[in-house]
Amino acid sequence: MKFCSECAHPVSLQIPPDDNRMRYVCSNCGAIHYQNPKMVIGSIPVWERDGELRVLLCKRAIEPQYGFWTLPAGFMENGETTSAAAQRETEEEAGARIQLHELFSLLNVPHVHQVHLFYRATLLDIDYAAGIESLEVALFTEAEIPWEEIAFPTVEITLRAFFSDLKKIRQEGGHFSLHAQDIFKPMRPGLAPK
Amino acid sequence: MKFCSECAHPVSLQIPPDDNRMRYVCSNCGAIHYQNPKMVIGSIPVWERDGELRVLLCKRAIEPQYGFWTLPAGFMENGETTSAAAQRETEEEAGARIQLHELFSLLNVPHVHQVHLFYRATLLDIDYAAGIESLEVALFTEAEIPWEEIAFPTVEITLRAFFSDLKKIRQEGGHFSLHAQDIFKPMRPGLAPK
Ligand SMILES: [Zn+2]
Ligand SMILES: [Zn+2]
Repeated sequence: MKFCSECAHPVSLQIPPDDNRMRYVCSNCGAIHYQNPKMVIGSIPVWERDGELRVLLCKRAIEPQYGFWTLPAGFMENGETTSAAAQRETEEEAGARIQLHELFSLLNVPHVHQVHLFYRATLLDIDYAAGIESLEVALFTEAEIPWEEIAFPTVEITLRAFFSDLKKIRQEGGHFSLHAQDIFKPMRPGLAPK
Repeated sequence: MKFCSECAHPVSLQIPPDDNRMRYVCSNCGAIHYQNPKMVIGSIPVWERDGELRVLLCKRAIEPQYGFWTLPAGFMENGETTSAAAQRETEEEAGARIQLHELFSLLNVPHVHQVHLFYRATLLDIDYAAGIESLEVALFTEAEIPWEEIAFPTVEITLRAFFSDLKKIRQEGGHFSLHAQDIFKPMRPGLAPK
């Protein structure tokens, strides 16, 4: 940020009165321009037939991580709810209609000022189709997932926790629980979200 | 937003290519200025002695809702995690040190572009003190809570769900679970967060 978005005067970094952090402040109109973390919201769309469970992944057609696989997810928009965002992103990126279940993972990525949320979901049909931000959309069993080509650490963590919970539930009963985790550094340098 | 924060040129509202929403776009430098929801993070700080459980509330010294009571909470900052934000806000507003537990509530407030998260917490001591944004900080049993003077619907929903869960757990066992709710309109017109 270089200029005030209210009056076009140059801004400077300073700590406002009654604050303890550097902010972009406009000395002309007095506006303080706060910058806050963004939420990235997605779903874990599942299709289960004959005891075989598959999840829907999208191959990214955009940077960062062009060509890598991700769960459908994207930035939450003003005016929508977290669950509406999960459904919208699943529709936009994977052309898929889902029944949304409860929140499954909450992952902080403080070095990029993001919080990622993923909801469990059931595909209502398999008439999915790659959206404009995807090269390809496909269903994968756990064994088929291209683990070396997953776009973001938060997606890998969510998928691994999901299949781990699933195995436990099938063996011992119980239910899915919220997975909360903080990612302080890129897990694989050079492959982290920018 | 009236001017581009990168080049000071006037911005205009338009739908960029490959997008489907109105954004503030700069025709001079091409910057697209996205606006996204903000996260408000807080805690439910609990002090339990002789079977009597009390929660710590803050009387607001700032607008909106000056003079009304709230759980300690505030905007998440860049570079921090959701749990760090909950601890920081509890320290700043209530001068209180807590042990943070799991996420208790996730409340969407789409008409103000906010998502509110509250974590369960245990007070480590009762040497709390009003911070600069609070007039007063005090412990309340469920019966003592000034329900008519609660600052925000998300705080009231969180407190009611917390005591409801607590009663159920004491009677039937079990544990706290995540409460997710969407608030589409102010519960009490005129008293909603601005
Ligand atoms: Zn200004
Ligand atoms: Zn510009």
